[in-house]
Amino acid sequence: MIVIGEKINGTRKAVNAAILARDAQFIAELAAEQAAAGADYLDVNAGTNPDREVEDMLWLLEVVQGAAETPICIDSSSPATLKAALEHVKAVPMVNSINADPRRLEAFIPLIAERGCPVIALALDESRSGMPKNNDERLENVARIFEATRAAGIADAQVYVDPLIMSVATDNSACVQALDCIRAIRAAYPEAHITGGLSNISFGLPERALVNRTFLTLALGAGLDSAVCNPANRALIESLKATEMLLGRDRFCRKYTTAAKAGFVKK
Amino acid sequence: MIVIGEKINGTRKAVNAAILARDAQFIAELAAEQAAAGADYLDVNAGTNPDREVEDMLWLLEVVQGAAETPICIDSSSPATLKAALEHVKAVPMVNSINADPRRLEAFIPLIAERGCPVIALALDESRSGMPKNNDERLENVARIFEATRAAGIADAQVYVDPLIMSVATDNSACVQALDCIRAIRAAYPEAHITGGLSNISFGLPERALVNRTFLTLALGAGLDSAVCNPANRALIESLKATEMLLGRDRFCRKYTTAAKAGFVKK
Repeated sequence: MIVIGEKINGTRKAVNAAILARDAQFIAELAAEQAAAGADYLDVNAGTNPDREVEDMLWLLEVVQGAAETPICIDSSSPATLKAALEHVKAVPMVNSINADPRRLEAFIPLIAERGCPVIALALDESRSGMPKNNDERLENVARIFEATRAAGIADAQVYVDPLIMSVATDNSACVQALDCIRAIRAAYPEAHITGGLSNISFGLPERALVNRTFLTLALGAGLDSAVCNPANRALIESLKATEMLLGRDRFCRKYTTAAKAGFVKK
Repeated sequence: MIVIGEKINGTRKAVNAAILARDAQFIAELAAEQAAAGADYLDVNAGTNPDREVEDMLWLLEVVQGAAETPICIDSSSPATLKAALEHVKAVPMVNSINADPRRLEAFIPLIAERGCPVIALALDESRSGMPKNNDERLENVARIFEATRAAGIADAQVYVDPLIMSVATDNSACVQALDCIRAIRAAYPEAHITGGLSNISFGLPERALVNRTFLTLALGAGLDSAVCNPANRALIESLKATEMLLGRDRFCRKYTTAAKAGFVKK
């Protein structure tokens, strides 16, 4: 399971305020906490204001890389920001994200291929519509993305497909559809990774954390093997470790047993 | 989801002591607690001493039925105990259990068919061996049970197949095998129910409750629709309600939302 720590995201109020105030300690703590809890990547999103995104991203990278050695997941839709960030990361970063929009593919893929970056691929096409209406549309978008990544020599194993989870409160079949989509992606692209944010599934419902971690268990069972989440969320990590063990991905239950003994989340 | 409350079981030390001491209050509380928490059936097992099983079972039935109106699940391997119990239950009870042993089928099926009882069918054959060695053996046993129930005119929908869960600590693939078995039973007998105890899966592991409820989520996803468990275990019921909602078995998320508002477990 590849865990992409979600907390350093400028679209969140407190993080946005910390970025604007250049509160390095606040950001460094988010980085250190997620790194200690075992994140494989730390997502870094500077926020939405294009005028200052490059500048904010470079400041964030300096702070985050000063606080943790975990590789970065550069989270931006701007080629300029991606380019600038790539020049300032130490370890090979993940890139978040591409989608089936030809302009995005054209701008991002050469940069990704050159650096050998793993990349999150959203199952949508920004140039055509907003969210995909159904799994057929998702899978068409994913197919067009793999056409482009394969043409650029990017191995399928470098691609983290995000099927785009919807809220089960809005559509009762949203989870069943997501699980179907995960199974279809797993079958069509056995080498690829499948990732996603977990929290959309519970939008509009009470006890969201419970819904999110229960969804994680079902999604792992269907073939998900990565998530954008908070690795310091103990209840989530408990579910993750127990599920991986149950799915036979933890020889002799060793990782589970070790995690349980340590209280699941390192402090 | 059909919940069979597991707590009134004479193989447990405290329950055994209460039975021997005729401590009606202790048993009545177990019954009332599980009934209030929403059990569909209350399993009643008098324990293992054949000399006094009938007598103890009848006392238990009197106490349990005095404390709760929930139907009983008569848990015994003895035809004499089953016969006596059937004469003293108010609502149509479930019977726990038959297996592919011809003698058991012969003794139990006429009683079950006559009263129209739902019945738990273990995927083993007591006359041949102990636990089945693999899923092929499980499915053969299940096929022989359905031959017998169908011949007696018992509808598949009355049969609750228990695939017999093993410990994942003993065999790393135990859960994957159980999920495969559940899917195979669901495909072969679409009208049948699939049930089971949840706690074997976590035998020998730390944080067993976590493993049990995570397994419940995976098993529900594979087609399980009943369990022998403690309906007053809040964390388990949370997982159950969230999973059923995520699997699209809860229209407009109404049951989940109501349960969440009530704190999941009624007191």
